[in-house]
Amino acid sequence: MKATVFYAPGDLRVEKVPDPAIKEQTDAIVRVTHACICGSDLWFYRGLTPYEAGWRIGHEWMGIVEEVGAVVRTIRKGDRVIAPFIFSDGQCEFCRKGLPTSCVHGGVWGMKNDGGQGEMVRTPFADANLVALPPTVENDDALLKAVLPLTDVMGTGHHAAVSAGVGEGRTVAIVGDGAVGLCSVLAACRLGAGRIIILGHQNTRLELAQRFGASDLITNRGDEAVGQVIEMTKGGADSVMECVGTSDSLNTAIGICRPGGSVSCMGVPHHSSAINFRRMFLQNISLRGGVAPVRAYIPELLPDVLTGRLDPSPVLDLTVDLAGVPEGYRAMDMRKAIKVMVMV
Amino acid sequence: MKATVFYAPGDLRVEKVPDPAIKEQTDAIVRVTHACICGSDLWFYRGLTPYEAGWRIGHEWMGIVEEVGAVVRTIRKGDRVIAPFIFSDGQCEFCRKGLPTSCVHGGVWGMKNDGGQGEMVRTPFADANLVALPPTVENDDALLKAVLPLTDVMGTGHHAAVSAGVGEGRTVAIVGDGAVGLCSVLAACRLGAGRIIILGHQNTRLELAQRFGASDLITNRGDEAVGQVIEMTKGGADSVMECVGTSDSLNTAIGICRPGGSVSCMGVPHHSSAINFRRMFLQNISLRGGVAPVRAYIPELLPDVLTGRLDPSPVLDLTVDLAGVPEGYRAMDMRKAIKVMVMV
Repeated sequence: MKATVFYAPGDLRVEKVPDPAIKEQTDAIVRVTHACICGSDLWFYRGLTPYEAGWRIGHEWMGIVEEVGAVVRTIRKGDRVIAPFIFSDGQCEFCRKGLPTSCVHGGVWGMKNDGGQGEMVRTPFADANLVALPPTVENDDALLKAVLPLTDVMGTGHHAAVSAGVGEGRTVAIVGDGAVGLCSVLAACRLGAGRIIILGHQNTRLELAQRFGASDLITNRGDEAVGQVIEMTKGGADSVMECVGTSDSLNTAIGICRPGGSVSCMGVPHHSSAINFRRMFLQNISLRGGVAPVRAYIPELLPDVLTGRLDPSPVLDLTVDLAGVPEGYRAMDMRKAIKVMVMV
Repeated sequence: MKATVFYAPGDLRVEKVPDPAIKEQTDAIVRVTHACICGSDLWFYRGLTPYEAGWRIGHEWMGIVEEVGAVVRTIRKGDRVIAPFIFSDGQCEFCRKGLPTSCVHGGVWGMKNDGGQGEMVRTPFADANLVALPPTVENDDALLKAVLPLTDVMGTGHHAAVSAGVGEGRTVAIVGDGAVGLCSVLAACRLGAGRIIILGHQNTRLELAQRFGASDLITNRGDEAVGQVIEMTKGGADSVMECVGTSDSLNTAIGICRPGGSVSCMGVPHHSSAINFRRMFLQNISLRGGVAPVRAYIPELLPDVLTGRLDPSPVLDLTVDLAGVPEGYRAMDMRKAIKVMVMV
């Protein structure tokens, strides 16, 4: 089969690799039909985080089950399935608590495992990870595209909103207009937020945020943005979602959070030297969230997508085929695409 | 009257100052009977945080009401009252939400206001701040000493526990064996924690922690302490209370927190350059808490103190009179006392 392989920063190749095979009785082999390129893939693509030559790529994908191990019970050959971006055993303390991202046997697709930006994936703990879709979705390309973000970015937006304590009538603010920021708008809207303020710099993305339900668009940066949000909310937003992952954006998020409110972090700041702990401490502002346990959210979000109440598909604004994966990375790296879908 | 006045780091003087008088109809004048010296007073005593010559000192105190303004309704002349360490108007959005520390008209005793380490205090918003005690306490010195920590340190320990999500059967860890750490043990015990681990270095304090309900005492530091707690809890404590306020202690707290757990911060790190955001992010560990809204907690905690179920008085292990305040600071500065009570 063919799959995307990392050679060096900026050098990804789609090439022949061995077909996967069942290794454990709990495995399944899935033929990938759709995958995504993630903003977090750009970290190693740009050489900012370590990644080893030969590692595979792609942690957001769906496909059709080819084969299942002897003890797999909930998934059958021929099922259309989606997977969360981190796999887990479904059994450990953290899986049972709804935090499969901390699973003691878990890991991320790609790296030393099969990646979703390829033709097939060996899936460990298939019962725990794969979610079968109803057969009715099969010929509905638009619906399949709407389901695909549940593998990561829509679940991450939901985690941002849940972690920030978004609820009925609350004033929320979202820092960042990338795919996660945009899905956070959808999530906040779905959870009944009263006012949704988004901070970003790209008109097309902010327009999409508005279509998704954002009520206020802020294009200023830093202190100016903070001052503007503090003034318009008379003291800050109850819930703030940080969807960029730099210390500047985290400080903006802390700066616009109302006393007693919560900031959720969907990106990890690589440099924390200037985090405004003083404001957090004096105003009892919480810092919450982290890597999103999207598998735990699929049962809640999927029905809304299947019935058309939730549609994150517009964040997938460029489609490539498997051979076009390197081109897809270039488009995201140059900010010519919000997020790329790969039709394998 | 006499009061403690700050001259310079290490130079505090008890000297004559003008008697306070009612300025607003919502004021009360209280004659102080008991006050405390706070660990946070040591910051400016040591010259580590700015404090201006001439500012007054003392934010933990109780006393007898001398006079009330025309519109004060809940407090009368002759009442014995306690006050929280930050005053508030009792009316604003944050006061109504139980976060009087963020009151839009609030402030701390001392500084430009009257300080509790003195004979009298003009109390703004007397109805909002002062809590009258039942007359039965008046001749019970031990009970008065047990009530006094509700002005700050016991309420702060309770806030640490609440913010860290302490509840029935949870495994909790407390970093720091100072007065706040010790009161956090009492608070965790009171809220039903299953196992209470405390990290500290002074035997007498750790023995007191054990009397207060701590089940495990850890005297290692840094990575060794982290490894020990991770091993004994098989992965970390559900709730961790950081009661020191350095980036080292915060990292220890993050390091020993279980995935999905919460760290409450009762001290603000002055240097944040090395905070372990990576672990927080990957394991969805929350950072919560801040300056404790102790006024909001008095109605819940006071009955337990009055009935003897909660007794934080052993943290007050040295008593001085008003003239002895400078000696009290020296004792705390040299760690010869956990916390000093001032009998005015």
